[in-house]
Amino acid sequence: MNEPMKRLRHQLREVADLESIAAVLEWDQNTYMPRGGAEARGRQLAMIQTIAHRQLVSDEMRSLLRQLAPISDRDDEDGALIRKAARKAERARRMPSEFVSELKEHLSRSYVCWTQARKHSDFASVQPFLEKTLELSLRKSEYLGFENHPMDPLVDQWDPGMNVSTVRSLFSELRSELLPLVRKIVDQPRKESSIAGVPFDEERQLAVGRYIAEALGYDFERGRQDLTHHPFMTRLSGGDVRITTRVLPNDLEYSLFSTIHETGHALYEQGIRADFDASPLGEGASAGVHESQSRLWENLVGRSLSFWKRFYPELQTHFPEQLQEVDLDSFYSSINRVEPSLIRTEADEVTYNLHVMLRFELECQMLEGTLRVSDLPEAWNARMSDDFQLKPTEDRLGVLQDVHWYCETIGGLFQGYALGNVMSAQFYYAAIQSEPKVAEGVAEGDFKPLRDWLTAHVYQHGARYEPIELIEKATGKPLAIDDFMTYLLEKFGALYSLERRSP
Amino acid sequence: MNEPMKRLRHQLREVADLESIAAVLEWDQNTYMPRGGAEARGRQLAMIQTIAHRQLVSDEMRSLLRQLAPISDRDDEDGALIRKAARKAERARRMPSEFVSELKEHLSRSYVCWTQARKHSDFASVQPFLEKTLELSLRKSEYLGFENHPMDPLVDQWDPGMNVSTVRSLFSELRSELLPLVRKIVDQPRKESSIAGVPFDEERQLAVGRYIAEALGYDFERGRQDLTHHPFMTRLSGGDVRITTRVLPNDLEYSLFSTIHETGHALYEQGIRADFDASPLGEGASAGVHESQSRLWENLVGRSLSFWKRFYPELQTHFPEQLQEVDLDSFYSSINRVEPSLIRTEADEVTYNLHVMLRFELECQMLEGTLRVSDLPEAWNARMSDDFQLKPTEDRLGVLQDVHWYCETIGGLFQGYALGNVMSAQFYYAAIQSEPKVAEGVAEGDFKPLRDWLTAHVYQHGARYEPIELIEKATGKPLAIDDFMTYLLEKFGALYSLERRSP
Repeated sequence: MNEPMKRLRHQLREVADLESIAAVLEWDQNTYMPRGGAEARGRQLAMIQTIAHRQLVSDEMRSLLRQLAPISDRDDEDGALIRKAARKAERARRMPSEFVSELKEHLSRSYVCWTQARKHSDFASVQPFLEKTLELSLRKSEYLGFENHPMDPLVDQWDPGMNVSTVRSLFSELRSELLPLVRKIVDQPRKESSIAGVPFDEERQLAVGRYIAEALGYDFERGRQDLTHHPFMTRLSGGDVRITTRVLPNDLEYSLFSTIHETGHALYEQGIRADFDASPLGEGASAGVHESQSRLWENLVGRSLSFWKRFYPELQTHFPEQLQEVDLDSFYSSINRVEPSLIRTEADEVTYNLHVMLRFELECQMLEGTLRVSDLPEAWNARMSDDFQLKPTEDRLGVLQDVHWYCETIGGLFQGYALGNVMSAQFYYAAIQSEPKVAEGVAEGDFKPLRDWLTAHVYQHGARYEPIELIEKATGKPLAIDDFMTYLLEKFGALYSLERRSP
Repeated sequence: MNEPMKRLRHQLREVADLESIAAVLEWDQNTYMPRGGAEARGRQLAMIQTIAHRQLVSDEMRSLLRQLAPISDRDDEDGALIRKAARKAERARRMPSEFVSELKEHLSRSYVCWTQARKHSDFASVQPFLEKTLELSLRKSEYLGFENHPMDPLVDQWDPGMNVSTVRSLFSELRSELLPLVRKIVDQPRKESSIAGVPFDEERQLAVGRYIAEALGYDFERGRQDLTHHPFMTRLSGGDVRITTRVLPNDLEYSLFSTIHETGHALYEQGIRADFDASPLGEGASAGVHESQSRLWENLVGRSLSFWKRFYPELQTHFPEQLQEVDLDSFYSSINRVEPSLIRTEADEVTYNLHVMLRFELECQMLEGTLRVSDLPEAWNARMSDDFQLKPTEDRLGVLQDVHWYCETIGGLFQGYALGNVMSAQFYYAAIQSEPKVAEGVAEGDFKPLRDWLTAHVYQHGARYEPIELIEKATGKPLAIDDFMTYLLEKFGALYSLERRSP
């Protein structure tokens, strides 16, 4: 088996390197590329994707995977590698390369149209693109194959082991707990922010973000931070994991928490075993698990009282003018205000998942054929009204707000955001319960105990385990909403003086 | 012919796009990449090169070029395209891909060794690498084939149409004019610089550089400027031509003139016909012609009295503390001091070419087998002593100063620097003689007339014409040193109060 395994690893490394090259091209496109570079860059990205696809579906790859199939039953890393590689190759083989190109090209035109449509709140102009996207999403789903729901293979692509039914059942449980909680909070006196709208020097915001990223453990020797429009993290190789942020002149929270969020993603990638680099195991376990790490650092650590007890005095020295008169409690309550709002990316921890569920449900309905694209804005607004008692006055604040449906298939991406929130609490609680130094460390600004726990139980494994298995191994129990709800009820119960749940 | 021509264009565009992808990876490597990214990046670059090579030597490319061979006699763009493509494919075919990999890998290890060797002035440590490079350079030359001199195919690769004999004859003529001029200048009282060693705020240096680049006509919508260690220009596509610079705290001249230099390269690339993009015609005509444009803008424009009459008052307002007391004449004389020195990149316009000739001659001798690598430092120092009456006390200041021999073949790169200087004057004189608005424009800070002339006669054509042909078409005469010597004698004659040459 040695020789074929060696050859397979080499082939997979080339595929991974091609994907990394595409990631460099995309990073540049989203950070520094001048406008004039767009056309050639689109061509270059499409070409790299085609070459990678060709390599994945090559006869040699197929024959190697066939020879090595017996290994795929094994419980070790090689077994995991073969399983991952076989799935990836199979997925590539099922999608004709003309379809991949057609989809890519359509989505890039759809994206361009959306940028204008959003600006002018003009859903009608992008509707034909979205109709075509729906059609192509269904075709993709058929190519990949499914038994129950057309969205199943799309969900499985991003969150392996999950499907519409498991997600729906988790979401329904979560929703029945969240809606009453939101209502209780809304009934409390509204909290004002003591920092919203206040101007903060942009260079200093950046410096503070960088300082915190470093304090959390982000390794700048194996990464860097740059400015972009929509912050993201990207792995260009195990030794080059980059984050990006955006600094707004009147919004300290934005740069602060987007930096911590992307740092969370990056800590995950920087923690993956070095020998998994440039292989299908050298990436996060799923979209959900990835998001669990960004949200764990952003929310459970970064929006905790304990974290700011340690860092707020420092923050005040960086911004004396703005923060001298704002005490810790007031700052803490400002960064944790709960308020139903129209925009997902600005939502608080309590309402956030409701935004995600709305999108997930509408995706399901579109793919099931029970919701027409032309009726989408209305359906969106109706649900916003049900869940939040809010109605977008413009589609810009509603169905046009997120890029996802306009640059990717319909279905596959959204559930991960809510799964990540749920998992984030389950991982964090397991860490603090099994290792007392974790919570002590956070309180002292020493994040090594937490990082060490996460590295041992999550990060180092990369994509070796399926999410479901990883969660059980790391936390000792299956994925469930309990820890997340406990976390929300304790934190926001205290913040909003709510009565405890009856036992 | 239509269908094969279309297919050939498509194939060539893919090769060009692959080269552009490599250029993005290299740009990133030289600007922003964290240290940890080096290993994967090396692999990615090698892979892209291999894919491009494979495409160039493919059966389809060969067959298309064979079908289209009759067109190659034509005088139009298609003819030029076929000739260029056929040469490029032929060159690729002649070099086995294992050799290309071996050379690439050796040179990247040699480069790493050189960075240390230079730091410690330790030629002995890099000598074995250089010996291997010599051997590989000779092998490359044999693969490419030659009749007279082993360096001919290497020279021809970078400066098409040139060979050792034509370069040697031009250099010998130039040398016999330069040596007496240098001697005359050295006999004059030494000039002091009024700006050397003075601290200049780095952010402001950058802002001034950017302002001047824009004034010269560099289009930031189709490019950008970033910081790097060794400034360079790179074309990522016709709409994305980037420059880089370096800012030293105590050296205004460095950032100023390196920015103008790279802007010159970039104006050339930005001026190439858009429909030549991503084809073998979408690049400069040769290393020499490219350098002629960087040097034209850097020296004939950027170090002229006329340019600074217009811009010096502005420069003074940016740096009042440093420049208030320095008058225009003193500034002009400072940026044009002539002084034999050890380092090529810091050399003035008069002595610069002697540095290049030294390298070119030693390259010839190594490839001829008349100079052993072990004797190189001695030969270097002997010639420095002959030409400049200077002797490097350390190899860091001598044979180790330039990266070229340690990251490329021996032979091919250096002559272009001197050819560029000679051509720069010939182009500039043709421009100002045929279009009075050119010189008027420069004096007024309006560079459009010059840019328009250069675009019409040089830039737009890209690599359509061979350098020799391009120069004749643009200037109405063959390449010769006359204009360059006239330029030097007039400018430095005035600066150093030399007697005019007897007619």
